[in-house]
Amino acid sequence: MSSWKDFSMSDHVYKKIELVGSSPESIEAAVENALARAKKTIRNMRWLEVTETRGHIENGKIDHWQVAVKVGFTLEG
Amino acid sequence: MSSWKDFSMSDHVYKKIELVGSSPESIEAAVENALARAKKTIRNMRWLEVTETRGHIENGKIDHWQVAVKVGFTLEG
Amino acid sequence: MSSWKDFSMSDHVYKKIELVGSSPESIEAAVENALARAKKTIRNMRWLEVTETRGHIENGKIDHWQVAVKVGFTLEG
Amino acid sequence: MSSWKDFSMSDHVYKKIELVGSSPESIEAAVENALARAKKTIRNMRWLEVTETRGHIENGKIDHWQVAVKVGFTLEG
Amino acid sequence: MSSWKDFSMSDHVYKKIELVGSSPESIEAAVENALARAKKTIRNMRWLEVTETRGHIENGKIDHWQVAVKVGFTLEG
Amino acid sequence: MSSWKDFSMSDHVYKKIELVGSSPESIEAAVENALARAKKTIRNMRWLEVTETRGHIENGKIDHWQVAVKVGFTLEG
Amino acid sequence: MSSWKDFSMSDHVYKKIELVGSSPESIEAAVENALARAKKTIRNMRWLEVTETRGHIENGKIDHWQVAVKVGFTLEG
Amino acid sequence: MSSWKDFSMSDHVYKKIELVGSSPESIEAAVENALARAKKTIRNMRWLEVTETRGHIENGKIDHWQVAVKVGFTLEG
Amino acid sequence: MSSWKDFSMSDHVYKKIELVGSSPESIEAAVENALARAKKTIRNMRWLEVTETRGHIENGKIDHWQVAVKVGFTLEG
Amino acid sequence: MSSWKDFSMSDHVYKKIELVGSSPESIEAAVENALARAKKTIRNMRWLEVTETRGHIENGKIDHWQVAVKVGFTLEG
Amino acid sequence: MSSWKDFSMSDHVYKKIELVGSSPESIEAAVENALARAKKTIRNMRWLEVTETRGHIENGKIDHWQVAVKVGFTLEG
Amino acid sequence: MSSWKDFSMSDHVYKKIELVGSSPESIEAAVENALARAKKTIRNMRWLEVTETRGHIENGKIDHWQVAVKVGFTLEG
Repeated sequence: MSSWKDFSMSDHVYKKIELVGSSPESIEAAVENALARAKKTIRNMRWLEVTETRGHIENGKIDHWQVAVKVGFTLEG
Repeated sequence: MSSWKDFSMSDHVYKKIELVGSSPESIEAAVENALARAKKTIRNMRWLEVTETRGHIENGKIDHWQVAVKVGFTLEG
Repeated sequence: MSSWKDFSMSDHVYKKIELVGSSPESIEAAVENALARAKKTIRNMRWLEVTETRGHIENGKIDHWQVAVKVGFTLEG
Repeated sequence: MSSWKDFSMSDHVYKKIELVGSSPESIEAAVENALARAKKTIRNMRWLEVTETRGHIENGKIDHWQVAVKVGFTLEG
Repeated sequence: MSSWKDFSMSDHVYKKIELVGSSPESIEAAVENALARAKKTIRNMRWLEVTETRGHIENGKIDHWQVAVKVGFTLEG
Repeated sequence: MSSWKDFSMSDHVYKKIELVGSSPESIEAAVENALARAKKTIRNMRWLEVTETRGHIENGKIDHWQVAVKVGFTLEG
Repeated sequence: MSSWKDFSMSDHVYKKIELVGSSPESIEAAVENALARAKKTIRNMRWLEVTETRGHIENGKIDHWQVAVKVGFTLEG
Repeated sequence: MSSWKDFSMSDHVYKKIELVGSSPESIEAAVENALARAKKTIRNMRWLEVTETRGHIENGKIDHWQVAVKVGFTLEG
Repeated sequence: MSSWKDFSMSDHVYKKIELVGSSPESIEAAVENALARAKKTIRNMRWLEVTETRGHIENGKIDHWQVAVKVGFTLEG
Repeated sequence: MSSWKDFSMSDHVYKKIELVGSSPESIEAAVENALARAKKTIRNMRWLEVTETRGHIENGKIDHWQVAVKVGFTLEG
Repeated sequence: MSSWKDFSMSDHVYKKIELVGSSPESIEAAVENALARAKKTIRNMRWLEVTETRGHIENGKIDHWQVAVKVGFTLEG
Repeated sequence: MSSWKDFSMSDHVYKKIELVGSSPESIEAAVENALARAKKTIRNMRWLEVTETRGHIENGKIDHWQVAVKVGFTLEG
C-alpha cells in the first residue's frame, strides 16, 4: 500500500484524502491532473485508489473525464 | 458535479471532505448546519453527496438528525 | 412493491426507470418534481426507491437538492 | 452511537431492530411514525440509521413515504 | 412492500426480521420452510427479501440449500 | 455477455433495462414472465442479471415471487 | 453456518439478530460481551458475523471498542 | 451532474439509462462508441458514470473491452 | 460454514474458489453442474455461496442460466 | 457517534478523516498507532469506524497489520 | 460471459481467478500484463472483470498502475 | 500492496486467493493459521485483505473465530 521505503518499517501512519481530477483526454490523465495539483501542498503521496469514473458529455461526445481517487500519503514525524 | 462556473473548464481539481451535521428539525437542516460551519474555512464548495442518515432518540422521539455528507470544493490555483 | 390494485394479481410485469429530480426546497420536493415530469409520458407509476441524494452549493448554502430515484410502473397488456 | 447516559459506560449491550414506517408527509415523519409505534413495547431506544427510502405513488404523486430504519436500544441488566 | 390490505392505509408500521431456512430440494423450498416455522409465532407476514443463498455440500453434491431472508410483517395496534 | 452472434463482433452497443416479473411458482418462472412481456416490444434481448429476489406472503406462505432483473439487448444500426 | 449438531439435519430454521457489544480491551472482548448478555434470554446461539467495528475515543486513545454482530440461533420446535 | 447550461436552473429533470459499449482499443473508446450509438436517438446527454469494466479475451489477449455506463440526459419540456 | 465433521475441530483451513455453472433448467441445476465438474479435481468441498445469477436469452426466453458460486473446501494436512 | 459531552447538544459539526495505521502486534494496536500520530495535530477526536483490515506478509507470517479507519472529530466554534 | 464458441453450448463450467497486473503506461496495459503472465499456465481464458484500479506514486506522479481483475476460463472435460 | 522487493519493479503479476482460517483465540490467530497452512504450497505471499469475520458459538461463548482473507502472492517468471 505504499512505496518501498515505507515498507521496511511498520510504524508509518498514512492519511487518505479524496480528490477529483479532470481531463479531456483519458482516465489516466484525469488522475495525473489531480496529482499534479495535490503535489503543490502534499509531500509523500504513495498510492491511490480509483473510486469513481465519470464523464461530462457535450454534443454526444465526452468533453472531459472526471475521476475520483483516494490518495494515501505518509504523515511524517 | 460542480457549479456552472467550473463546468466550462475541464482543468479543475476538487477535493472531497466528509462532514457530519446535526439538527433537531430535519435532514435538510442537518446538512445546512454542516455547510454553515464548513463555510468559515472552506471557499468554493460546489456539491455534496449524502452518505449516511442517522437520528438520536430521546423518549421515543428523534432528538436530532445526524447526516454525513461528502462535500466537494474547488482547489484553487 | 406496488399499489393495491396490482397486489391481488401475481401476473404483472413492472419496468423500473431511473430519474433525477431537483428542488431548492427539500429532498421530498426534488422527488415530486421528477414524478411531475415523468407523469407526462408514463402511466401507472407505482413506487420509487431513492438511490442517491446530492446537493448543489452556492455561497456555502444548498442551492438545490438533486435526488436520484428508481421508479417502478406497470407494463400494461 | 447512543445517548450520553450510555456513553460514560463501556459495558452496555445494544440490540438493533429493523422497522419500516410510513407517512404521507415527509421522510422524517415516516421515521417518527415507526418510533411512535415501537415505543409501545421498546424502552431505551437510542439511535437509528436510515437504510432505505421509498415512496408509493398514486396518480403520479407520492401517496406516502416508506422509510426503513435500524433502531438501536439498550439491553438492560 | 406489503399485501393489498395494508396498501390503502399509509399508517402501518412493519418490522423486518432475518431468518435462515433450509431444504434439500430447492431455494424456494428453503424459503418456504423458514416461513412455515415463523408462522407459528408471527402473524401478518407480508413480504420477504432474499439476502443470501448458500448450499451445504456432501460428496460433491448439494446436500441442502440455506437461504437467508428478511421478512416484513405488520406491527398491529 | 451476449449471444454468440454478437460475440464475433466488437462493435455492438447494448442497452440494459430493469424489469420486475412475478410468478406464484418459482424464481425462474418470475423471470420468464418478465421476458415474455418484454418480448412484445424489445427484439434482440441477449442476457439478464438478477438484481433482487422478493416474495409476497399470504397466510404464512409465498403467494408469488417477485424478481428484478437487468436485461441487456442489442441496439441495432 | 452452525454447530455440528445442526449440520446433520437440513430442516433447521435459524433467526439472526443484530447486537452491539462494547469493551475497553479488544474487538474480540466486545463481541464476547454482547454474547454474554444475549445468552440470558437466547438459547442455541450458533454463529455470528461481524458487520461493523467502531471505537470511541477519549484523549486521543480508544476508550472502548464497539462491535456490531449478527448472531444466528436455532428456532426450536 | 450536468453541463453548465443546466446548472443555473434548478428545475431540470434527468433520466439515466444504462448502456454497454465495446472497443478493441481502450476503455475510453468503448464508452465513446456507446455514446455515438445513443446520440442517434437521444438529445441532451449530459454526463455518465462507469459502472462496470470488462474485457473479452481471445488467445490470452484482450479482444475487446466492454464498458457499462449510466448516461444522464435532460428530459425536455 | 462447513460440514459437521469439520465443526468439532477449530484448526481447519479452507480455500474458496469461484466457479460459474450453466443449465437450461434452473438456477439449482446450474450450481449442481458446476459442482459436478469441480468434483473431478477437488475433494472435500463443504459449502457454497451464490454470488451472481444470470441468464442467456434466445428468442425472448432463457436459453440457459449461469450462476457464479464461491465454493469452500478443506485444505488437508 | 461521539463522546457524551457532545451528545447533550445537537449543534455540533464533525469532520471525518481517513487514516491508515500499522502494527506488528494486532489490529487494535494498528488503530492506536494511527490515533497516536493524529493526536499531535487534531483535538477532539470522538469515534472511529474501521473500513479495511490488511496485513503485510514476510516469510509466510504477518509482518505487520495495516488498518484503515475513519476518525470523527468535533469542529470547534 | 465467454467467447462465441462457448455460447452455443450451455454445459460449460468456468473458473474465475483474481489477478493483479502492473504497468507504468495505462490501466489497459496493466490488465494485458496480467493476462500475458497468466497465459503461460491457463488455457481458454474467456473474459475478465476489473475489480480494483490503483496507482503507485513517486514524486507526485503515477509510477505504475495496478489493476485487479477476475479472469474467467473454461474448465475442460 | 506488496513487500518492498516488489515495489521497485512495476512488472510483477500477483494472484489473489481466498482462504478461511480458524482459531479459538483471536481474529489475528485465525489469520495466521490460514497463512501457516498456505505457506506449505505457496511461496511469495505478500499481503492480505480481511473480507469476513465470523465466530462459532458454543454455550453462549465464541468457540472459535473464522476469518476469510484474500492473500496476494507474486507469480514468478
